[in-house]
Amino acid sequence: MIQGFVHALRIQSKIVFIIVRNLRGLTQLVVTTDNPEFGTAKNLTLESVIRATGEMVDAPQAPGGREMHPIKIEVLSKAEPELPIPVVVKGGEETEAPIRFDYRWLDLRKPEKAKIFKVWTEFEKGWRKYWDENNFIQLYPPALMSTPSESGSEVFEVNYFNRKAYLAQSPQFYKQMAMASGFEKVFMVSPVFRAEPSFTTRHLTEFTGWDFEISYIKDHYDVMDEEEGMIVSGFKQLLKAFPDLNITVPTRPFPKMTIAEAKKILSGLGISSPEEHDLSPEEERAISEYVLKEHNHEFVFITDYHKSKSTFYHMSSSDDPERSRRADLLYRGIEITTLAQREHRPEILEKQAKEKGMDLKMLKDYLNFFRYGCPPHGGAGIGPGRFIMKILDLPNVREATYLPRDVKRLNP
Amino acid sequence: MIQGFVHALRIQSKIVFIIVRNLRGLTQLVVTTDNPEFGTAKNLTLESVIRATGEMVDAPQAPGGREMHPIKIEVLSKAEPELPIPVVVKGGEETEAPIRFDYRWLDLRKPEKAKIFKVWTEFEKGWRKYWDENNFIQLYPPALMSTPSESGSEVFEVNYFNRKAYLAQSPQFYKQMAMASGFEKVFMVSPVFRAEPSFTTRHLTEFTGWDFEISYIKDHYDVMDEEEGMIVSGFKQLLKAFPDLNITVPTRPFPKMTIAEAKKILSGLGISSPEEHDLSPEEERAISEYVLKEHNHEFVFITDYHKSKSTFYHMSSSDDPERSRRADLLYRGIEITTLAQREHRPEILEKQAKEKGMDLKMLKDYLNFFRYGCPPHGGAGIGPGRFIMKILDLPNVREATYLPRDVKRLNP
Repeated sequence: MIQGFVHALRIQSKIVFIIVRNLRGLTQLVVTTDNPEFGTAKNLTLESVIRATGEMVDAPQAPGGREMHPIKIEVLSKAEPELPIPVVVKGGEETEAPIRFDYRWLDLRKPEKAKIFKVWTEFEKGWRKYWDENNFIQLYPPALMSTPSESGSEVFEVNYFNRKAYLAQSPQFYKQMAMASGFEKVFMVSPVFRAEPSFTTRHLTEFTGWDFEISYIKDHYDVMDEEEGMIVSGFKQLLKAFPDLNITVPTRPFPKMTIAEAKKILSGLGISSPEEHDLSPEEERAISEYVLKEHNHEFVFITDYHKSKSTFYHMSSSDDPERSRRADLLYRGIEITTLAQREHRPEILEKQAKEKGMDLKMLKDYLNFFRYGCPPHGGAGIGPGRFIMKILDLPNVREATYLPRDVKRLNP
Repeated sequence: MIQGFVHALRIQSKIVFIIVRNLRGLTQLVVTTDNPEFGTAKNLTLESVIRATGEMVDAPQAPGGREMHPIKIEVLSKAEPELPIPVVVKGGEETEAPIRFDYRWLDLRKPEKAKIFKVWTEFEKGWRKYWDENNFIQLYPPALMSTPSESGSEVFEVNYFNRKAYLAQSPQFYKQMAMASGFEKVFMVSPVFRAEPSFTTRHLTEFTGWDFEISYIKDHYDVMDEEEGMIVSGFKQLLKAFPDLNITVPTRPFPKMTIAEAKKILSGLGISSPEEHDLSPEEERAISEYVLKEHNHEFVFITDYHKSKSTFYHMSSSDDPERSRRADLLYRGIEITTLAQREHRPEILEKQAKEKGMDLKMLKDYLNFFRYGCPPHGGAGIGPGRFIMKILDLPNVREATYLPRDVKRLNP
């Protein structure tokens, strides 16, 4: 028995060839006029769903070297004869992205598209293996908050029983709260929301975030070390599940450099940007290329950002109070993680919030987390969509997102 | 070395006893006047976080039969001397729930509270094991939608770049879309949002939902069968991870009865309700008790609800068009799952939507999913919070929720 979509259909006067597609591949059915199902076969439409029973026979010309001569064909779902976008792309001419995304359920029928989400599933399995083996507790943070979780400008407002709520821009406050609760090591998988009017290939208004937070760290190097373990576990799982992907499991420790060192290297390469304390997308790509060439590694941690580029909750470096205990992880030219040791001393946290011009009243709940004992801690926020995009060399994070949401798109 | 919170503190003139609490349990430190750290010990406050190094020695009176005579005590975080709620509950007098939830990060320091989330983590691991072994693909559905996903009344509205968006009341449309994409078996873990002004022990405005959907089913019995596999896998994992919980892995197949049969049994027990086609909370409890007594089983599927109690996308029974191919799963007296075979034939789906008075324009995207071929399919929505509440016999689903959200609560 074979069940699937009618992928291709060749109707001749005396014979019908049907290619059926399902997650396991393509199978050819051959129906000749002497077959009682010839009428059914002749009236099929592309992308209809059928169930066929019959004998598989050797057929060197058929996909997989075998084909079925069905004794029964059931039409489980008949497709309208005109498809709004083709599922089988002829001559490499893919439909334009915005139109494909309007018909995302048809777009995703292409076998290489389903694979994106199989890769994500296995990659996440690898991360979870690490979290499991290292006694992480999973928590689900709320999306609804009474105050914005980051700066107030890029937040979505919700009408909440005659008052206002906000959608979480990150689970930052809540993963830190878990440290104040003594959970020691937690991970969270949750949607995050950004009301940014961005139109780049790597920004969405809603995306899945992976977050972890760990207690009793010495500094941000402990966070980097822990994250390396997760990444390696993810890649090992991919290597096992998808031998065809040519996965290279990254070696540890990952290369690390301060932003000052990165800027020096960039300047040596003749690449400069007006921004002294941050990397432009072009600089991120150049540093990644440099590290690949010099250290044969696809990852690099950029560390010790200037405090002007850090949030109020990042802990300052003890060597240089102008620098934060923060690091960004670049993979194949883009930032996929921001991590930091957090400031857990309430008086310094308050001082840093004031310096950044934050409204302490809005931060009341958050600041209270640290008043009754809280271990030193740090963690990271990871964008799995960007990871998958880069692993599979997709042109846009939307392609790695089941149903992308952006300024213009809320459908389907 | 031991790191943790100061759980208890007994300061005498010549000796200080400190009980340190962390995820692994309690450890006693004993500091006498001859110890250079006596001053530090004497000035500690409850719930401060410390790191102590020193030798562990046998001490029959101490928790675990051992104690530490520290050579060094570092105060990593000093707690304010007055705690808003006690962490160590004296004489079983727990703080009232609303106040505890205001200080959730202190409430969660109680070892039995952290355990709730360890149990969830392991339970989910068991479900994921099933999904993994059975080739399910994980997808993350969007929370932001252009139209409400269920009825319009209980939906939160979001201000979305000068237009309106809505928060998903379930990932229903999107898991069905995955079937139209040929994904065959998917699971989703996502927050769902209900703008219901409910004040019960089992309703929240935001909660974590587990959803799965499978293709090529015969009817809703296939969905029940698949869900049984997941539940058994979850309980097996709990049995392994928490021998102290006295977990009984449920036997398969789970008991099943139609709602008509359930009503007959209830009537025999002298329990009636004005609602002919649905079970009241009291009736759910009574049926669960009945099944436990008669079949020694904590689960029961109630099947074949009347179509007045089903949504437009449930498929009707072929034996009785007044009945839907829907089932609810009760566990220890409450509903934890609703499942159904979906109607995948667009013309019937449209007809059913019209009968329910739905606005077809609002459903345009959804109805289109079925026009270009879609396998017969069904699935379930599961409330893991309710599961954990019942497994641990908690009085309220809020206790199984990291940071519960309800009509009144958006904090912390």
